[in-house]
Amino acid sequence: MSWNTFGRFFRFTTWGESHGPALGVVVDGCPPGIALGEEDIQPFMDARRPGQSKYTTQRREADEVRILSGVFEGRTTGTPISLMIENTDQRSKDYSEVAKAYRPGHADYTYDAKYGFRDYRGGGRSSARETAARVAAGAIARKVIPEVTLTAFVEQIGEVAIDHARFDREAIARNPFFCPDPETVPRWEELVDGARKDGSSLGALVAARAEGVPAGWGAPVYAKLDSELAAAMMTINATKGVEIGDGFAAVTNTGESNADPMRPAEDGGVSFGANHAGGIAGGISTGQPVTCRVAFKPTSSILTPVDTITSEGEATQIRTKGRHDPCVGIRGVPVVEAMMALVLADQKLLHRAQCG
Amino acid sequence: MSWNTFGRFFRFTTWGESHGPALGVVVDGCPPGIALGEEDIQPFMDARRPGQSKYTTQRREADEVRILSGVFEGRTTGTPISLMIENTDQRSKDYSEVAKAYRPGHADYTYDAKYGFRDYRGGGRSSARETAARVAAGAIARKVIPEVTLTAFVEQIGEVAIDHARFDREAIARNPFFCPDPETVPRWEELVDGARKDGSSLGALVAARAEGVPAGWGAPVYAKLDSELAAAMMTINATKGVEIGDGFAAVTNTGESNADPMRPAEDGGVSFGANHAGGIAGGISTGQPVTCRVAFKPTSSILTPVDTITSEGEATQIRTKGRHDPCVGIRGVPVVEAMMALVLADQKLLHRAQCG
Amino acid sequence: MSWNTFGRFFRFTTWGESHGPALGVVVDGCPPGIALGEEDIQPFMDARRPGQSKYTTQRREADEVRILSGVFEGRTTGTPISLMIENTDQRSKDYSEVAKAYRPGHADYTYDAKYGFRDYRGGGRSSARETAARVAAGAIARKVIPEVTLTAFVEQIGEVAIDHARFDREAIARNPFFCPDPETVPRWEELVDGARKDGSSLGALVAARAEGVPAGWGAPVYAKLDSELAAAMMTINATKGVEIGDGFAAVTNTGESNADPMRPAEDGGVSFGANHAGGIAGGISTGQPVTCRVAFKPTSSILTPVDTITSEGEATQIRTKGRHDPCVGIRGVPVVEAMMALVLADQKLLHRAQCG
Amino acid sequence: MSWNTFGRFFRFTTWGESHGPALGVVVDGCPPGIALGEEDIQPFMDARRPGQSKYTTQRREADEVRILSGVFEGRTTGTPISLMIENTDQRSKDYSEVAKAYRPGHADYTYDAKYGFRDYRGGGRSSARETAARVAAGAIARKVIPEVTLTAFVEQIGEVAIDHARFDREAIARNPFFCPDPETVPRWEELVDGARKDGSSLGALVAARAEGVPAGWGAPVYAKLDSELAAAMMTINATKGVEIGDGFAAVTNTGESNADPMRPAEDGGVSFGANHAGGIAGGISTGQPVTCRVAFKPTSSILTPVDTITSEGEATQIRTKGRHDPCVGIRGVPVVEAMMALVLADQKLLHRAQCG
Repeated sequence: MSWNTFGRFFRFTTWGESHGPALGVVVDGCPPGIALGEEDIQPFMDARRPGQSKYTTQRREADEVRILSGVFEGRTTGTPISLMIENTDQRSKDYSEVAKAYRPGHADYTYDAKYGFRDYRGGGRSSARETAARVAAGAIARKVIPEVTLTAFVEQIGEVAIDHARFDREAIARNPFFCPDPETVPRWEELVDGARKDGSSLGALVAARAEGVPAGWGAPVYAKLDSELAAAMMTINATKGVEIGDGFAAVTNTGESNADPMRPAEDGGVSFGANHAGGIAGGISTGQPVTCRVAFKPTSSILTPVDTITSEGEATQIRTKGRHDPCVGIRGVPVVEAMMALVLADQKLLHRAQCG
Repeated sequence: MSWNTFGRFFRFTTWGESHGPALGVVVDGCPPGIALGEEDIQPFMDARRPGQSKYTTQRREADEVRILSGVFEGRTTGTPISLMIENTDQRSKDYSEVAKAYRPGHADYTYDAKYGFRDYRGGGRSSARETAARVAAGAIARKVIPEVTLTAFVEQIGEVAIDHARFDREAIARNPFFCPDPETVPRWEELVDGARKDGSSLGALVAARAEGVPAGWGAPVYAKLDSELAAAMMTINATKGVEIGDGFAAVTNTGESNADPMRPAEDGGVSFGANHAGGIAGGISTGQPVTCRVAFKPTSSILTPVDTITSEGEATQIRTKGRHDPCVGIRGVPVVEAMMALVLADQKLLHRAQCG
Repeated sequence: MSWNTFGRFFRFTTWGESHGPALGVVVDGCPPGIALGEEDIQPFMDARRPGQSKYTTQRREADEVRILSGVFEGRTTGTPISLMIENTDQRSKDYSEVAKAYRPGHADYTYDAKYGFRDYRGGGRSSARETAARVAAGAIARKVIPEVTLTAFVEQIGEVAIDHARFDREAIARNPFFCPDPETVPRWEELVDGARKDGSSLGALVAARAEGVPAGWGAPVYAKLDSELAAAMMTINATKGVEIGDGFAAVTNTGESNADPMRPAEDGGVSFGANHAGGIAGGISTGQPVTCRVAFKPTSSILTPVDTITSEGEATQIRTKGRHDPCVGIRGVPVVEAMMALVLADQKLLHRAQCG
Repeated sequence: MSWNTFGRFFRFTTWGESHGPALGVVVDGCPPGIALGEEDIQPFMDARRPGQSKYTTQRREADEVRILSGVFEGRTTGTPISLMIENTDQRSKDYSEVAKAYRPGHADYTYDAKYGFRDYRGGGRSSARETAARVAAGAIARKVIPEVTLTAFVEQIGEVAIDHARFDREAIARNPFFCPDPETVPRWEELVDGARKDGSSLGALVAARAEGVPAGWGAPVYAKLDSELAAAMMTINATKGVEIGDGFAAVTNTGESNADPMRPAEDGGVSFGANHAGGIAGGISTGQPVTCRVAFKPTSSILTPVDTITSEGEATQIRTKGRHDPCVGIRGVPVVEAMMALVLADQKLLHRAQCG
């Protein structure tokens, strides 16, 4: 199968391969009259862009977004918004090894098993370059939900986690790790640089939070807000797990320790004594911050030779040369944030459809 | 919003409330010619059915499924299969307290916030009774994927986990906890019974595995097999997290320790040296067992009073009397298994559509 | 394939066969808080119900609708509304002839070609009894669009058309033909009764009109209001054509004769000089009445023997005994009206989602 | 609302405005391994391309298609195929009149009513240029259904119809009207040239036929093959009606005259004595040619002044200067053919999904 559209009402469809001429996204269902220009999108592209530090892949892409439709005189028209990003640094290299042997952990073998052949240049459609298109779409989604403030960051790389007591939202944009804890930054520098030099790779934990989501977004059963977020996060390359609120820690909670007591708020609304639920109850937002965490595996591209087979089924070994992220989870941060924006924008419009 | 259909080609739509006359499901897209009768569905209903031990809620439902359409002379016709389960034990009780005050952690407040009012009897649509309909649909899905063997079980309750060294598939059905480790059973008996007596509740970790999934099911981007499974699991009541393969443990893996080496198999196929990926690479099945884990929170229904507000916004306290699961994750096992079957059946047909 | 759901946001899924125990529909996406009871639905069921005059099939069904979910204390809750109608007059008869030989023009041959076998009792899923479920769903849709007034009627049976100069909306409900021209009624009585006695059948033209649709419902391209209506009408049994506004007559119009001039209305809005467009321009409603026409073929069930083949491919002849509509288009009127309501309710909510 | 995707499994999403930098389409769900290059698509673009005779609009577009993704080494990879067509002849002109006053029959008024403003340059999204994207997608769809032969042609312009006795398939491509009856060509030349000189416009009837569709494609209820075709055709600009087989003529047929008798064929299959049904029974293909007819209105762009209002609601008159098709139905022929290919490709894959 092939399914390259996400969303129910606010929908986007991405296309493009790592080494094709371009990649892009078509955003459909966007409300009309929203101020939108390339300059609203580019900052988010830049945050995700590779080659900005030695801690990410050295592929250098300008990732310049061009709006091809759906905007007139600086405002969305309500018709589909087509965004295109040209690929400029598809370094010509020798792909003969990758063409012949499967890189374990990559999509090489499964694409061949499914489709009978594959575009092996840079991973083709399985490349994380696809996420550039999501980040572009996410920038539009943000405009649909101005009431929401999104914050995503890296919470842990390998064994080294941040200290939440030192959480500083402003710090996130000031280091190459999207790290909210300045004291952890030098430890990650050392850790990631070591992995880079060793040709190894590291896993990471990315956390995200949406503040300002009103109570009432989501659905009771098969489009529960938690389910939509989980689906969204698990479409990102290298993700292996997702949790809402306390997530897996809830397994060792009791009903008492897991409770989020409610009290009347001074402004007439409700005040919660805790947020174990991550801002979602019964699939619908409670008005508290919506929180989730996403597990990224270490990229499978390592210099250590790994046993594998050729496309003819012969035993061989493969080691991945070339430009790769020693910790792909880092660059996942703007993507997680974009997917959260895209899910919330969709849910806002769906809620409006049913409940006015 | 309201979205009560799941699936892309093999789709099912559930309906019904806890205390309505009945609940049910319509399964659409099922291949024709499959032998099907109530007797194929009932055993799975019985596994999920409440009231079978003191470790689950004492609500007693026969959960008898009736096939109302889509089957002729014992075989599916290719048209929609309508299944209905009558509610028989909607004990008439006094709901005045629940009608007036919100139970924290339940859908009471969010349904009111979204819809303006709610069916408060037994939780209405937010009741876990809805999962009976999924289990019924799942029994049909199983018939679509006879090549797949599904195994789900409880891996941990509260702090007490099984010992995988003692894993015994046959043991799962022989105890009220779906526990594959017989030596853990008495410990859980004590633990869950204690919670029951205290009016408390416990979280649980449910694991599931699908063997026999051929390489090639799934999709490269927005219908990745991992994403579909995550979405499916997170629609189940009380779930807070989902992971595929190593999941969150992958955060502390390195590229080397996370590798799944490939070697030629004796039968001409491929043999894997490990399965950190949980049987999915690039969103598509590898041919290894597909594995996932789901975190269930402790149910919010506890005897300890919790601060809350009334629907008029006044401060009050609530304690949940009545019949409840001290560990709702236990009865989640047949539901997790059903959702896995439903996702895989859908993916099998979608793969056939595109790739023949 | 099998696709038994219609609609994008306001969706309904029908199930059931002619001779199964029951048939029904699940309506999803309905706004909450709408007053709804069986008594709101039943009158529309009664209008479609067979056996009320000698001009329709003599099958007698009570067509009593039962609401099984989604309504609490007389109001819709926003969760799926399940409606069921029991089949009571599946007269036990000898189906051996129909089981063995294909009735030309019916779905017998195509269902076998597609699915390998079929439920031949009363046509199974291809029976027009399925439309009872749509009419039930349509009654709910009407409640979503109280601003719209729907009128459907028979405009022509065989060669005999009404005279529009004598159009009387009130007359429609006062004769068994949904005929708005009282002087045409006796001519149709004679015509249809003749066909009935001869064991023949007649085609019919059904017209429908929606007044009160505001300007702005619909979509520019693939969910054009005209396209949605066309799709809806062409799912009704025995329909062979659909047109909006002038429809096929527009082929012989010129740009001048086809123009719908606009002038300022006294109330500050717009007044149109004509409605050749049928209330839709560029796929979006203009504020004028939305009009369409649907062509129904004569039912293929006739007493005259027709050449056919058996399921083994042998030549034979078949003549259709039993209870059939001499002019199936007549009973199509409440179905056309229901489908129009269902499309418009969906479009109203979709418009609200995008444009607030 | 905005819905720019069509199809259920084989799906395409179009984007772009008349006077934007480009327009395009993303085709998703295409089977892998199909030989595809720009040269497979361009001939169909050229057939639809404007400015090739004096009988169509004088806008001159190269309509050169570029494949941006989804094809590797000359074959489809199974991932989304992105096609782009640059707009080159968006003649800079004075749009101030169109910006201020609504052209009756165009989407001007309805877009404003829906979205609050519009891209008035060349009609923006409502321009028939969008159909270029469909024709491109249709060229891919044709590759998915090599067993099917498609034929579309103009059957009537204004009052002048072809004589079917002179039908010559080869003639269609040899005249600017897609006319299969060479003797009618000079009459249409005169007719259309007269309308062009008068600044008037003409309606047209387009017919299409698909030969080679096997029995079994389609669905029993809400994705009936007839319904899918009707929806597809009614999304094309300027269409007002669609019919399958005998269509509206079936209203005056009797059951006897409408019968399609079946006889055993010499090759062991079935031979039909007629094809009133247009190759579809019960929503599913019979194996006969699938036939439909589409009514195109005369374009609303005429030189005769028509009463209208300004966007401020003032009375005025408008006459449409500039480059327009005197008979837009002519250029509808390649679009009708493309939509038929797109529907059939989708149905082929859906049938394969359910029935193997």
